[in-house]
Amino acid sequence: MLLSVSSCVLQHVACMQSPQKQFLLHFCPVHYRFCLFVSVLLRKLISICVSDVEYLRSVLPAGTDAAFFSYLKELDCSAVSVSAVPEGSVVFARVPLLEVCGPLAVVQLLETSLLCLVNYASLVCSNAARFRLAAGPRRRLMEMGLRRAQGPDGGLTASRYTYIGGFDLTSNALAGRLFGIPVAGTMAHSYVTSFSSLEEVWPQTLVPCGGGGPIDFICLVKGWLGRVCQLLGSKTSLVREGELAAFLSYAIAYPQNFLPVIDSYSVSCSGLLCFCAVALALCELQYQPLGVRLDSGDLCRQSLEVRRVFKECNKQFSVPQFESLIIVGTNSISEQSLAELNKKENEIDVVGVGTHLVTCTRQPSLGCVYKLIEVRGRPRMKMSEDPEKSTLPGRKSVYRLLDTDGRPQMDLICLSEEAAPKAGVSLTCFPLGLTKTLQTVTPAQVTSLRLDVFTCGQITFPLKSASESRERAQISLQTLHPHHKRLQEPHDYTVALSEQLHSLVSDITKGNSKGSNFLLSN
Amino acid sequence: MLLSVSSCVLQHVACMQSPQKQFLLHFCPVHYRFCLFVSVLLRKLISICVSDVEYLRSVLPAGTDAAFFSYLKELDCSAVSVSAVPEGSVVFARVPLLEVCGPLAVVQLLETSLLCLVNYASLVCSNAARFRLAAGPRRRLMEMGLRRAQGPDGGLTASRYTYIGGFDLTSNALAGRLFGIPVAGTMAHSYVTSFSSLEEVWPQTLVPCGGGGPIDFICLVKGWLGRVCQLLGSKTSLVREGELAAFLSYAIAYPQNFLPVIDSYSVSCSGLLCFCAVALALCELQYQPLGVRLDSGDLCRQSLEVRRVFKECNKQFSVPQFESLIIVGTNSISEQSLAELNKKENEIDVVGVGTHLVTCTRQPSLGCVYKLIEVRGRPRMKMSEDPEKSTLPGRKSVYRLLDTDGRPQMDLICLSEEAAPKAGVSLTCFPLGLTKTLQTVTPAQVTSLRLDVFTCGQITFPLKSASESRERAQISLQTLHPHHKRLQEPHDYTVALSEQLHSLVSDITKGNSKGSNFLLSN
Repeated sequence: MLLSVSSCVLQHVACMQSPQKQFLLHFCPVHYRFCLFVSVLLRKLISICVSDVEYLRSVLPAGTDAAFFSYLKELDCSAVSVSAVPEGSVVFARVPLLEVCGPLAVVQLLETSLLCLVNYASLVCSNAARFRLAAGPRRRLMEMGLRRAQGPDGGLTASRYTYIGGFDLTSNALAGRLFGIPVAGTMAHSYVTSFSSLEEVWPQTLVPCGGGGPIDFICLVKGWLGRVCQLLGSKTSLVREGELAAFLSYAIAYPQNFLPVIDSYSVSCSGLLCFCAVALALCELQYQPLGVRLDSGDLCRQSLEVRRVFKECNKQFSVPQFESLIIVGTNSISEQSLAELNKKENEIDVVGVGTHLVTCTRQPSLGCVYKLIEVRGRPRMKMSEDPEKSTLPGRKSVYRLLDTDGRPQMDLICLSEEAAPKAGVSLTCFPLGLTKTLQTVTPAQVTSLRLDVFTCGQITFPLKSASESRERAQISLQTLHPHHKRLQEPHDYTVALSEQLHSLVSDITKGNSKGSNFLLSN
Repeated sequence: MLLSVSSCVLQHVACMQSPQKQFLLHFCPVHYRFCLFVSVLLRKLISICVSDVEYLRSVLPAGTDAAFFSYLKELDCSAVSVSAVPEGSVVFARVPLLEVCGPLAVVQLLETSLLCLVNYASLVCSNAARFRLAAGPRRRLMEMGLRRAQGPDGGLTASRYTYIGGFDLTSNALAGRLFGIPVAGTMAHSYVTSFSSLEEVWPQTLVPCGGGGPIDFICLVKGWLGRVCQLLGSKTSLVREGELAAFLSYAIAYPQNFLPVIDSYSVSCSGLLCFCAVALALCELQYQPLGVRLDSGDLCRQSLEVRRVFKECNKQFSVPQFESLIIVGTNSISEQSLAELNKKENEIDVVGVGTHLVTCTRQPSLGCVYKLIEVRGRPRMKMSEDPEKSTLPGRKSVYRLLDTDGRPQMDLICLSEEAAPKAGVSLTCFPLGLTKTLQTVTPAQVTSLRLDVFTCGQITFPLKSASESRERAQISLQTLHPHHKRLQEPHDYTVALSEQLHSLVSDITKGNSKGSNFLLSN
């Protein structure tokens, strides 16, 4: 067996004297109802160093042409051009979302790199968009999946693309630094359980927000704890001293960011009481506590109880700050459990999602493919008994046709030499899928889906920041008709071929095209 | 809300004058029947640079203690020690496979990094081991999942740990270079379909393996194609000229590595005939062709047909080389389809697996947890209504007890201060799980599972190469009793607590321990 990278490259070296083979490849998302396209990291496309070449020499057969290794050392993307759907655009199955043009060998070498960069990013971004649709626009969503990702790099990709897909926050500080994503987190259970006694709290004083002398904060909190327990009819003897010590230490360090996890022992017997006592003391010193995190059990039921206690505290102690406390819920949230959250009464303001988001448990992989569509001006097509797996031959343009409400009604795939469809002018086309009949449509508006993003080795379309792509993704999703984006049993979105492309497909399938030579004699 | 990294660290700075908090943490694999432990990349544990600290300063509240940032800049792992199960050992649910000891803040900062490094690596390694068990020991397995991994780094992790789990080859050339994993691959369909005519084949000659003048290889192959078609009753007019040209070019470049993909058009009408013609010509020039790859359709049925044709060619043309040709199968292979392959008649020698291997579709995430077990010499325990989610308190040792056949019969978790169990001496213990009763066992052999791998910031156990860990993994799996490792409905493996650890758990659960302070007065 042989490294697949070399088989084609040697062929290229062998053909160096002939006119450079130009060919085109595209990505075609299959299997997924829709996916958000995310652009490739173009600068990373190829960089082979001398020691890489020496490694390849060591694993290839002894007789391998020396010119191949010299060729590898000189390899670059200066003759490669890419047109792509901009990052954050919604694309549908079978739409060619990326077209790569360049020398045969170089473009074949890019196959796995491009698929690796596009597949998971698109998948996790689309998954995040589904969580956003399930959560509704109001609830804030926090990504916290690093510990279940495929290593640090997988985790960073997940943080970036779930943000683009509609999440608001990440717990990954490096992603915050690199991509400007707002970072957030609360405390760990191990922080809470590392304390056992109030004697461990140090310093023990806090200066009021408005200034003044330091106040004995432990004493203040103990007083509030008594009043809270009395109000709620709870026993102070069941309150965990370590939990109270942990909250005290945290609040003294971050009086303006007090948001503890309250389920380390018992929410109702200890965690919630400790929170209220510390938060009331903070309010007394004119600080605004932020809220609580629930990490186990029935989040809906607990959030109702917590909210009730907050309201009761305000009623009893006149602390309007308690009306704006937030409740964060984090406990193996899936798309389904998030959708169920919307049906049950609850008071959860922020939801943290980890495992089900980054590992995409609903669909763990995306099957974009990278196929040859043209060689030296001649169209190429992969035929398959499964029509879904056949590719569309030739260089193409993709147009999105909008209806009078500005909603996408169809994506039209044409050969690139065809004129673009015009708004208000009817056209005939062949929808892909079961209906094979000709259809007539009059678009109210027409947009071209792909842009030239990389031309002869240079980036020709400015790379977007994560927040710019996020905005595009949300707009792109908003314009979709609700029946195309609903999570259960969505309507099929129509993707159609132009008449000209349709007849090219028919010709090649029937063997009438120059692209499908048979060996007529030996 | 707040970065969780900082909440505990500030506490640490505040406590700098008190005796350093020592605490212990362990990994406990839950949810999975068994998992292979893979060691953390210890050198990467912590390295915070100045600009990272400046980023943290920019996102933390203005009032954050300046000493915290100075502390961060000085942070290192010089006071951290780790004991761990060696990479490639089988571990079972609830066994503490890694114990980290060090200053509270540092060890808490390591939580997500360690979980991120261990979780996916262990999961994908265990998944690979299941594929190996399903495939049986004879069939060779090739990992080819890069394009579905979570980016390049996720793909590298997958290549390394699937090799350790029992795969033989990878298509990831960088993994081959970095970890010494044997690399392999065949050609892409796009390589085959990029050719359309024999005119594109250049050079057209091949020098025989034993030396001599260059032979017109196209002419030679055309002759063989005619004879093959005659033998099999096939029509040369259905043979794809482009496919033949691709195979010719490949064979001329790599006469000793001829292993083409033969399903680009039609295996029986074109691909197999082209292969036989080129392979027979190679044999005539004393080269040994390697075999074929099948990438679609019913792999079993096709492999039988391909093998029949190989035998017929040998019978007719006396080419014993055709008896050792291999057949590679690659087509969305899952653990289940691999197991089914073993039940159906087929002639597949090598199986390539991508998506289902690296994304672990059967179970997409592993839930190792990292929990506090001791603070300043006092045991800590997380209690939960779900006994599976409770942690085991205190510093511990883990022993594997073997029966008289040398097979593991039980893992025994003891407090570290207890004496190790002795071979031939009976002991009593409490198995975890449903049976709460005391059990008596007399081990024939006792081994300690964990080793000190990192002591006060230094690696103290030599890091193993991928092939050394692979060997350990295979031995570790082989010693298991078959009923513990069968893929469907395996027997539970017993993990038990020593009497002393069991009574510590009971004490803490009943609130009798010093570790569980309640607030007795306010």
